Amino acid sequence: MKVAFQGELGAFSQQAIRQLLGPRAKPSPRQRFDQAFAALKVGEVDAAVLPIENTLAGSVHENYDLLLKYDFEITGETNVRIVHNLIAPPGTKFASIRQVYSHPVALNQCLDFFAKHKRIERVPHYDTAGSVKMVMEERPAGAAAIASELAAKIYGGEILKREIEDDRQNFTRFFLLEPAGSKPRGRGGEWKTSLVFSTANRPGLLYRALSALALRDLNLVKLESRPRRGKPWEYMFYLDLLGHREEKNVKNALGHLGELADYLRVLGSYRSIGVE
Amino acid sequence: MKVAFQGELGAFSQQAIRQLLGPRAKPSPRQRFDQAFAALKVGEVDAAVLPIENTLAGSVHENYDLLLKYDFEITGETNVRIVHNLIAPPGTKFASIRQVYSHPVALNQCLDFFAKHKRIERVPHYDTAGSVKMVMEERPAGAAAIASELAAKIYGGEILKREIEDDRQNFTRFFLLEPAGSKPRGRGGEWKTSLVFSTANRPGLLYRALSALALRDLNLVKLESRPRRGKPWEYMFYLDLLGHREEKNVKNALGHLGELADYLRVLGSYRSIGVE
Repeated sequence: MKVAFQGELGAFSQQAIRQLLGPRAKPSPRQRFDQAFAALKVGEVDAAVLPIENTLAGSVHENYDLLLKYDFEITGETNVRIVHNLIAPPGTKFASIRQVYSHPVALNQCLDFFAKHKRIERVPHYDTAGSVKMVMEERPAGAAAIASELAAKIYGGEILKREIEDDRQNFTRFFLLEPAGSKPRGRGGEWKTSLVFSTANRPGLLYRALSALALRDLNLVKLESRPRRGKPWEYMFYLDLLGHREEKNVKNALGHLGELADYLRVLGSYRSIGVE
Repeated sequence: MKVAFQGELGAFSQQAIRQLLGPRAKPSPRQRFDQAFAALKVGEVDAAVLPIENTLAGSVHENYDLLLKYDFEITGETNVRIVHNLIAPPGTKFASIRQVYSHPVALNQCLDFFAKHKRIERVPHYDTAGSVKMVMEERPAGAAAIASELAAKIYGGEILKREIEDDRQNFTRFFLLEPAGSKPRGRGGEWKTSLVFSTANRPGLLYRALSALALRDLNLVKLESRPRRGKPWEYMFYLDLLGHREEKNVKNALGHLGELADYLRVLGSYRSIGVE
């Protein structure tokens, strides 16, 4: 099974692919999110795995837009803890490290580490996993990289220090996408249903829309408004609820919500897969 | 007036400071968001300007956390359009450019430009404005940078190409923060009130909480849920509504919401300032 993702081999998205589909799924890297969606559309891959939100950085609006543009099914979700490790060629002594390469966002998530080791210079690189690849291939003297454990494994690096990130509560949630009509994966655990709807921005319209769920005792686990591009005062809402779209209660609620909203699209009913 | 922000001189946050406080406010750069908050707390600066959400990348949860940790007043908001320009030393010919330096996030927002000019190599740098500074000081042959117009002005660079970003709908919203009790700035335009509240995750509790606003015909302009750290199944909600906290309707609604929610904090009532 071939699975598109955005980034380089060893990226956290590849970790998500492993959690969702096991070690035999073949990751197929793309430079951009839209290229990962397009690869699935034309059948170059069997599935795509995309980040949808991060506990520190918020929802990835771009991927919500792409979910609406295409007609795929969410067949699973997983959460990956973002762990940053200091990685160098095997045998390197920590005391010899003078430069650390990584993506600036990763470097900025390890500021306590750099404050403690002032001799070490931060050097921006294009990609976390790519910085491990470069350090392993070019072996610049005194160089290390910051990336995932998986990147260390893939490129043969040794982890000199584990978990050097400032904030351990850094998780990214990923969706597994497959062609429309695909069956959800995973076993056990609760069903979740994700949907997008819009209302005009008259006072109380969102409240009325939510009554479709509240009056049926459905449990919301995400609700987020987003202004519509080029349509001032209109909003899209991203909503996740517990339950499967074919359960009677959920089905009735979605029918009712469809009456109250200007637009409604159900993105899929799926389960959480893999360790957190 | 001295104003803390995160980033280098010439960052988009400095553009936000200009829109909010005019050209005479003195920007005081800090490396991290929490350092900008801390600088205001100890009185090193008179105000701080922080990004709170971006149309592509979502809400900056870290700054919501810091808003709750500290006790400041939101005294204004502004929206900055994120425009990426190709900047080089004056007199440089576009045909001579071989490398472009910038923050990887900015480089990734200009992929159409790079697809069109395949001879040009992308080189990651720590910061957008910092890449202009470097190109102007070190003058590497065939080098340009991608950054704001303000960065070009500050470091004396010339804009070779304007607006090379893929997506023009890229805006960042900033809050102006001042010590508790400070008066809101700006004149005219609608009042907005921002608040954070939490409820347990029993079905219908959010719906009940929103009734406090809906039953008074108040208009929501943002609503976003966020799981509480370390408290599974509990949520924080970020909510913006139109109106000032001292207006009778809003005051009553906030009192009612305070009864229905486990926790409620009003972050401020303020107006939008500056061009969009």
